[in-house]
Amino acid sequence: LSAGAPARLAALLTDFGTDDVYVGVMKAVLLGICPAARIVDLTHAIPPQDVRLGALALADAVPYLPAGAVVVAVVDPGVGSERAALAARAGGRYFVGPDNGLLSWCLDADAAVVRLAEPRYRLSPLSDTFHGRDVFAPAAAHLLNGLPLDRLGPPAGSWRGLERPAPTRRPDGGLDAHVIAVDRFGNLILDLGRADLPARPAFEVAGQRTIGLVRSYAGAGGCLAALVGSFGRVELAWPNGSAAARLGVGVGATVVVREAGADQ
Amino acid sequence: LSAGAPARLAALLTDFGTDDVYVGVMKAVLLGICPAARIVDLTHAIPPQDVRLGALALADAVPYLPAGAVVVAVVDPGVGSERAALAARAGGRYFVGPDNGLLSWCLDADAAVVRLAEPRYRLSPLSDTFHGRDVFAPAAAHLLNGLPLDRLGPPAGSWRGLERPAPTRRPDGGLDAHVIAVDRFGNLILDLGRADLPARPAFEVAGQRTIGLVRSYAGAGGCLAALVGSFGRVELAWPNGSAAARLGVGVGATVVVREAGADQ
Amino acid sequence: LSAGAPARLAALLTDFGTDDVYVGVMKAVLLGICPAARIVDLTHAIPPQDVRLGALALADAVPYLPAGAVVVAVVDPGVGSERAALAARAGGRYFVGPDNGLLSWCLDADAAVVRLAEPRYRLSPLSDTFHGRDVFAPAAAHLLNGLPLDRLGPPAGSWRGLERPAPTRRPDGGLDAHVIAVDRFGNLILDLGRADLPARPAFEVAGQRTIGLVRSYAGAGGCLAALVGSFGRVELAWPNGSAAARLGVGVGATVVVREAGADQ
Repeated sequence: LSAGAPARLAALLTDFGTDDVYVGVMKAVLLGICPAARIVDLTHAIPPQDVRLGALALADAVPYLPAGAVVVAVVDPGVGSERAALAARAGGRYFVGPDNGLLSWCLDADAAVVRLAEPRYRLSPLSDTFHGRDVFAPAAAHLLNGLPLDRLGPPAGSWRGLERPAPTRRPDGGLDAHVIAVDRFGNLILDLGRADLPARPAFEVAGQRTIGLVRSYAGAGGCLAALVGSFGRVELAWPNGSAAARLGVGVGATVVVREAGADQ
Repeated sequence: LSAGAPARLAALLTDFGTDDVYVGVMKAVLLGICPAARIVDLTHAIPPQDVRLGALALADAVPYLPAGAVVVAVVDPGVGSERAALAARAGGRYFVGPDNGLLSWCLDADAAVVRLAEPRYRLSPLSDTFHGRDVFAPAAAHLLNGLPLDRLGPPAGSWRGLERPAPTRRPDGGLDAHVIAVDRFGNLILDLGRADLPARPAFEVAGQRTIGLVRSYAGAGGCLAALVGSFGRVELAWPNGSAAARLGVGVGATVVVREAGADQ
Repeated sequence: LSAGAPARLAALLTDFGTDDVYVGVMKAVLLGICPAARIVDLTHAIPPQDVRLGALALADAVPYLPAGAVVVAVVDPGVGSERAALAARAGGRYFVGPDNGLLSWCLDADAAVVRLAEPRYRLSPLSDTFHGRDVFAPAAAHLLNGLPLDRLGPPAGSWRGLERPAPTRRPDGGLDAHVIAVDRFGNLILDLGRADLPARPAFEVAGQRTIGLVRSYAGAGGCLAALVGSFGRVELAWPNGSAAARLGVGVGATVVVREAGADQ
């Protein structure tokens, strides 16, 4: 079996959508500098300027990227301002993007982080409104060509963090969890992992209640069910339907979690 | 002229949409195992869990895939249940996907079909909700690396079929055809081939009528027209407009087809 | 640093959307003929049959494509009619598409243009409704394989042009500019470059007014602002909001531009 040389993989995540040519132009710039790159779209449907949802999507996807992959993440309301542009190496992968917290959950204590400051690795002229094209895609391409990280700019002493979404403790001992995303199937993704759950959890939202966890969507009996999704987050699903539509709830909704039996 | 080595082509079809990172993660997994793969998206917009529309889209696209291509098809409401996962070779191409009929129209009598059962060709841990990432993408990547089909698991003695959409005979000798899809231009695609048509067909739907076939959209005179589309299916079009919008009909609508003159 | 061999880059722009398999099938055909091709989607969301918006998107994106790239552009209401199919070389890049003006802004006076007429470089049978698959993708793939342009067909003596959108002069000496596109962020893109502007421009639309230009979205103070966008066009933005939604205007709306102070 021959797997060939390692991929020079660029993984893109933006809030640009794909109706405009922005993403296509970023890819053209990237391939112009690194013709051997393979490009994977993680998503371009992050809601405009929603840095937090971008960070969440990155946190889900990054563990599945092969070693050496370069993530290009652009959710960048501050483009053209004094916010810094970063490149980093962490966990065997590379990251480029604005210094606004978007990358922060991917940068562990051992991360090497620089500020993108070297004009020769940018497009010229440099726009004030599209650093995805002029700064981040070129930096990613040069990294994929083997440029050492520290050639892109000076070390960044610090970078902006972002609070991770987390359930809050209720006075009654339960948890208020929150819907952090709704996927295409209408599943409600919560800011909750398996470790946060009591032994026999009861979930309550919008007047509906479900007790315990099912193993898979198919294992639920045609009504509201909770399960641990494929990225380790607890989610509420309505098999063969949309939990979001059935319950009329979306991002931001609160789901009360208690030990079953303890809530009556 | 140099065409280079044959592509290691993976063609993806899912109902995952592209707003979430699901598809991007499948691609990352696939390229992590087979860095030389080229990936083509057939569509990710199959309506959630609509196995039949997924099968129709596959049937249209597969004849245009080069020899050796691997199709990864995931419309999988039964993920995590006892439904089997399949890999197959048919017509010089490979297929991986759930055993729910999705692949069945691509599997001829000579198809070699196995059940995906070999843990070493899956991700570990194996989730119960995302086999596109954990089972199907890895299997496709190993096939693209040259792994023989029968290494993926034991032969599947049988697999689930799916009834093909077809027009029904009317008491008056005509046909009731059905809209099986509506494309972006509002064209109504029918479960009808040219061979099903009488010599001079009249089509009737939503109070509108058209007689005969035109050759192209441009050949129709600004009103409802029928033609044989580019995948061999009869469709109804409204040139420079949307037949679906003009007629107010969608998937499932009935179109009556008779010999012109025989219907009065 | 090793950048590898130049990319054989195909850049696709259509009005096909990505819900149907049309685009995926074009890519499969292209890779079947040129397995080494890298494919970039510029956009497939051109409104159905809107040749002018397709031409605008191309004009934005093409300068960022590397030398040797082949653009495949299909917005083609006349498919199956007598309209010609073109291939061209201009500015070091290649273009294939219908002769309806779509490519015209990319074809300078030195462009070499041929009519696609050689059956051996098409799919057979040739459909009357999907030349993206049967004519344009194959032509692009053969060009990427190194086929000389003039082997695809005879020189085209002329081709159809398309009027460029431009502001009109007002009786009062100002300009009526027009919204030619609205991007995902709700920015209103105008048919106006920096050179068209007076020294201190005032913009007026839908009862709102802004004076001068800001440098970036972040530089605007939470109200309507004008800036020169990343493709050189003047645009109106509402920072952290959508100008289109705030003003209730879309493509086709008029924006009055005057010298500030001259309008009272």
